[in-house]
Amino acid sequence: MTHAAHRPLRVVVWGENWHERNQPHVAEIYPDGMHAAIKSGIEENLGERAVVTTAVLDEPEHGLTEERLAQTDVLTWWGHARHDEVSDEVVERVYRHVLGGMGLVVLHSAHWSKIFRRLMGTTCALSWRNSDDRELVWTVDPTHPIAQGVPHPIDIPKQEMYGEQFDVPPPEDLIFVSSFTGGEVFRSGITYRRGSGKIFYFSPGDQEFPVYHHKDIRRVIANGVEWVASDRTAHTAPEVIHSGPGPFTVGEG
Amino acid sequence: MTHAAHRPLRVVVWGENWHERNQPHVAEIYPDGMHAAIKSGIEENLGERAVVTTAVLDEPEHGLTEERLAQTDVLTWWGHARHDEVSDEVVERVYRHVLGGMGLVVLHSAHWSKIFRRLMGTTCALSWRNSDDRELVWTVDPTHPIAQGVPHPIDIPKQEMYGEQFDVPPPEDLIFVSSFTGGEVFRSGITYRRGSGKIFYFSPGDQEFPVYHHKDIRRVIANGVEWVASDRTAHTAPEVIHSGPGPFTVGEG
Amino acid sequence: MTHAAHRPLRVVVWGENWHERNQPHVAEIYPDGMHAAIKSGIEENLGERAVVTTAVLDEPEHGLTEERLAQTDVLTWWGHARHDEVSDEVVERVYRHVLGGMGLVVLHSAHWSKIFRRLMGTTCALSWRNSDDRELVWTVDPTHPIAQGVPHPIDIPKQEMYGEQFDVPPPEDLIFVSSFTGGEVFRSGITYRRGSGKIFYFSPGDQEFPVYHHKDIRRVIANGVEWVASDRTAHTAPEVIHSGPGPFTVGEG
Amino acid sequence: MTHAAHRPLRVVVWGENWHERNQPHVAEIYPDGMHAAIKSGIEENLGERAVVTTAVLDEPEHGLTEERLAQTDVLTWWGHARHDEVSDEVVERVYRHVLGGMGLVVLHSAHWSKIFRRLMGTTCALSWRNSDDRELVWTVDPTHPIAQGVPHPIDIPKQEMYGEQFDVPPPEDLIFVSSFTGGEVFRSGITYRRGSGKIFYFSPGDQEFPVYHHKDIRRVIANGVEWVASDRTAHTAPEVIHSGPGPFTVGEG
Repeated sequence: MTHAAHRPLRVVVWGENWHERNQPHVAEIYPDGMHAAIKSGIEENLGERAVVTTAVLDEPEHGLTEERLAQTDVLTWWGHARHDEVSDEVVERVYRHVLGGMGLVVLHSAHWSKIFRRLMGTTCALSWRNSDDRELVWTVDPTHPIAQGVPHPIDIPKQEMYGEQFDVPPPEDLIFVSSFTGGEVFRSGITYRRGSGKIFYFSPGDQEFPVYHHKDIRRVIANGVEWVASDRTAHTAPEVIHSGPGPFTVGEG
Repeated sequence: MTHAAHRPLRVVVWGENWHERNQPHVAEIYPDGMHAAIKSGIEENLGERAVVTTAVLDEPEHGLTEERLAQTDVLTWWGHARHDEVSDEVVERVYRHVLGGMGLVVLHSAHWSKIFRRLMGTTCALSWRNSDDRELVWTVDPTHPIAQGVPHPIDIPKQEMYGEQFDVPPPEDLIFVSSFTGGEVFRSGITYRRGSGKIFYFSPGDQEFPVYHHKDIRRVIANGVEWVASDRTAHTAPEVIHSGPGPFTVGEG
Repeated sequence: MTHAAHRPLRVVVWGENWHERNQPHVAEIYPDGMHAAIKSGIEENLGERAVVTTAVLDEPEHGLTEERLAQTDVLTWWGHARHDEVSDEVVERVYRHVLGGMGLVVLHSAHWSKIFRRLMGTTCALSWRNSDDRELVWTVDPTHPIAQGVPHPIDIPKQEMYGEQFDVPPPEDLIFVSSFTGGEVFRSGITYRRGSGKIFYFSPGDQEFPVYHHKDIRRVIANGVEWVASDRTAHTAPEVIHSGPGPFTVGEG
Repeated sequence: MTHAAHRPLRVVVWGENWHERNQPHVAEIYPDGMHAAIKSGIEENLGERAVVTTAVLDEPEHGLTEERLAQTDVLTWWGHARHDEVSDEVVERVYRHVLGGMGLVVLHSAHWSKIFRRLMGTTCALSWRNSDDRELVWTVDPTHPIAQGVPHPIDIPKQEMYGEQFDVPPPEDLIFVSSFTGGEVFRSGITYRRGSGKIFYFSPGDQEFPVYHHKDIRRVIANGVEWVASDRTAHTAPEVIHSGPGPFTVGEG
C-alpha cells in the first residue's frame, strides 16, 4: 500500500531560485523558475495522484517550517549557487523528517547540498565540465519502478558533464548510468534508505539547459517521487529504546 | 597489497576512559582502562604486524591531533558516557581522515558517538537492556576475513543486550548476527565504506563485563583492524574536479 | 503502478501436497492441504486485489503448464519431501518465467527446491533441528513494504529451527531475522532480483506446526506476494542484443 | 591473511583455444594462445606470489580433473565459440569447487559460459557490437584492491562494445564502468560471492584485439586473481547440518 492508494501524495518542490532571477539566459529557459518546471513535470505524470506545491530559498525558513514538513510526503531539492545560505536549523529539520519517513528526491547540483551530504556521510564530490556535452542515460535496472516508461537510453542533447568518481556510499539501487560526449560515465540514478526515509538522487538537470522540460526526465522525476513515498502512514523517527525483559526468559540482572 | 605487507600498521586505540576511573566495579575489570585491554588484544593477535598506541578523552585534543592522525592507519573508538564532550573540531578531523583512507573500528556503545553518527547519516539508535544476558555471536558470512579464526557461535557468558531495530544504513557486509537470552537479535558485526575509508562496527563489549578480555572478541577486533586498513599508501580525500576535455572529443562550449 | 492498481494479481500457490495426504498428524493441521491454508491467508489479506488458485505436484506438469505460467503474476512454492520429483523441464519453465518478470515467493523447506537453488547459484544449505523451538521473527528493515502490519517480533510458539549458516548469496534486502529457543539465529526474510523477476524467501512454516494459520505469517506472505509482483505489464525475458551503431557516432569496423 | 602470505597462489588459466588455432588474424595477435598471454600478464604482476599453469578445452576433461581443481586456488576462464562443448560434468565440478572456496575470474565473452550462468542464476545476456569502438574503463570504487595501480580511465584503443542491459544479479562490488565510442556504457568490473568462493567478472578482452597484451588490463586481472583467492586454507563446501540442542536450552521435541 502506498500513500497514493489512499489520498494524493503531498509533494513540495524546493528550489534555490537564484539563477533564474539573476541570469537572463537562465530566465529565458525557466521564466517561472526551475521549481515551476519541475512541479509541472510531476503534475503532468502523476495527475490526481499528487498535490504539488513549491518553496524557495528566500521565503522565511526557506518555506520549510515544521508545520509544512509534517504535512509533506515527498520533498524534491534543487540548489547550486547558494548551498551555504541554507540555514543549519532547516537542514536538521529536513534531516529529521527524512529519517522519520519523508521521501527525498535530490536533483543535479544538489549533490553538494548540505542535506544530501548530511545524509550520505561523505563529501559527495564528483568530476564536472560545462562544455556542451550530450548525455545518454542508460537503464541498468530495467525492473526498477523508477525506470518505467522511458527509452533506453534517454537522450539529452545538451547537458553539463558529471563524471566519476562520485564520492557517495555504494548505492543500494543503481538504476541509471550516463555517458557523455567526452567519454565520461556517471552513476546518474541511485537510491538510499536512511531511517524510515527513502532517497533518490538523479543527476540530469542544469540551469543552462532546458533539461526539466525534457519529457523523459520529467517522467523519471515523477517516478522517483512515487518511489520515495514511504509506505508508512506517519513520520516516525527511530529512537533508542530501553527494553524490559525479552520475549524469552531473562535471568536477574 | 596491504600496508601490513610492507610495514606494521599504525593503530590508535581511543578510549573515553571515564567509567574505569570513576566506577570501582569497572576499574576492577579494567584496572589499566578498557583501551589498554583492547590494545593488548590487538597486539596478541597481530604481533609485529601492528604498532598500537592509545589516546583518551582527557588528553589535549583528545590525543587526536592532525599530526597524529596523519600517521595513523587505523583508529578504534570506544565511548559511552561522555560522547558530548568530544569536540566537534576533533570529530570533523577524524571524519576527514576516514574519508581520506584511515580505517575505523567502532566498538559497542560508540554506535552513539558523534563520529559514527556523522559517517552513517542516521540516528544509530537501537534497543538495549542491561540485565545479565548471555550473547551468542553467529557468523553469517563465513568467508569474510573478519570472521576467520573464531567459533560459531562465539559465546559471551554475560553481556548487555543490544537489539533490533538498529537504525543504520543497510550494511555492505553483514558478518555477525547475535542473539541474547531474552530472544532478541542484533546485527553485531557490519561494515561500510565512506570515501577512501573502511569502517567496521562490532557491538560486543561493555564496561560492566570482561568482554575485551575474551579471546574470540579480541581476535575479531584484530581481524577488523587489519580489514579496515586501506590498500592505499596515502590518505587522499576525494575532491571536486573540474575536468578539461574528455578522452573522446568534446565540442566547444 | 503495480498490476494491483489495474486488475487483480493472478497468484498460483504451488504445494507438494505429500505430507498432508500421507501423515495423519499433518492432515489434522491442514485437512485441505497446506496450499489451501496459504491460499486463504493471501485472500484474507489481499481481498479483491488478488485472484488465487492452487497447483500441486501430482497434477500433469505439476499444474504449471506454459499457458498457465504465462497468465501468472506471482507463484508461491512450498516443497519438502519430494523436491526430486519435480521435473527438470518444469523447473526450467518456471525459471524462464521468473527471469521474464513473474514474482516468486519461496517458503520454508523450499530453500532446498530445485527452482530456488537454480536461481541462487548456491547450495542453499542451512542448519536445522526439529525440536519444539519457539521462533521470534524480528523486523530489521521497518520501512520495507513486506514488513508492514506485523508486530516486532512475530511470535511463533512452536516451530522447526532453521539456523545460520544459510548458504545463499548476500540478500539484496534483509527484512527479518529470527531467533530460536536454542539461541540460534536465521535470516528469515530476504529478497533477490533475477532478470525481470523478484524473489522473496520467507522461512517460517513447517508441516508439523500450524504456522500457515498464524495471522502475522499470513500477512507477511500476502505482503510478499504484492511486493514480488513486477511493475512491468508483460513477461519479457532478457535476451542477447546485437546492436547497430550507437547513439554517438561509431567508426567503421 | 591470504594464501599469498604463506605460499604462492596456485592459478589455472583456462582457455577455449579455438580462435587462435583456426583464425589466422587471431593467431597473429596471440601466437601461443590467449591463455598464454593471460598467464604471462598474471606472472608479470604477481611474480613469486603465484604459480600459473594453463588448461584448454581439448585436453581430457578440459584439463580440469578433480585432482587438479583440489590443488587450485584460483581459476580464470575465457571462452566464446565453444561454450556448449564444455561438459556438464566438468561445469558441475568447477561449480562445486567455487562454492568450496576456489576463486574464479571470468573474462569477456565468458559471461555466456555455462559456469558463469550457473553461478549467477540469470541469462547473463547483454548488448554487443563488433565495430572498432574505443573503450574507456572508469574506476568507480577507487578503494577496491582490484582497482589499484591503473589509470582513470584505462584506455583501450580498439575493442568490441559490450553494453547494458547486462542481465546479472546486482553486483556486490561495482568497481569499473566502461564507455564506448558509440556512447554505450557497461558495468565492466563486478564481484560476487557464492558459497565460500569469490568471483570477479571483467569484460575487456576480445580475440580480435590485443587487449590481453595491454599493461593495465593485465594488472587488473592480476589484482582480480589475488582478490578472489579465498582466505580459507581449504576448500569446504557448505552442507546441510542437522543440529543437536542449541547453545541455550531447548525443550524436548
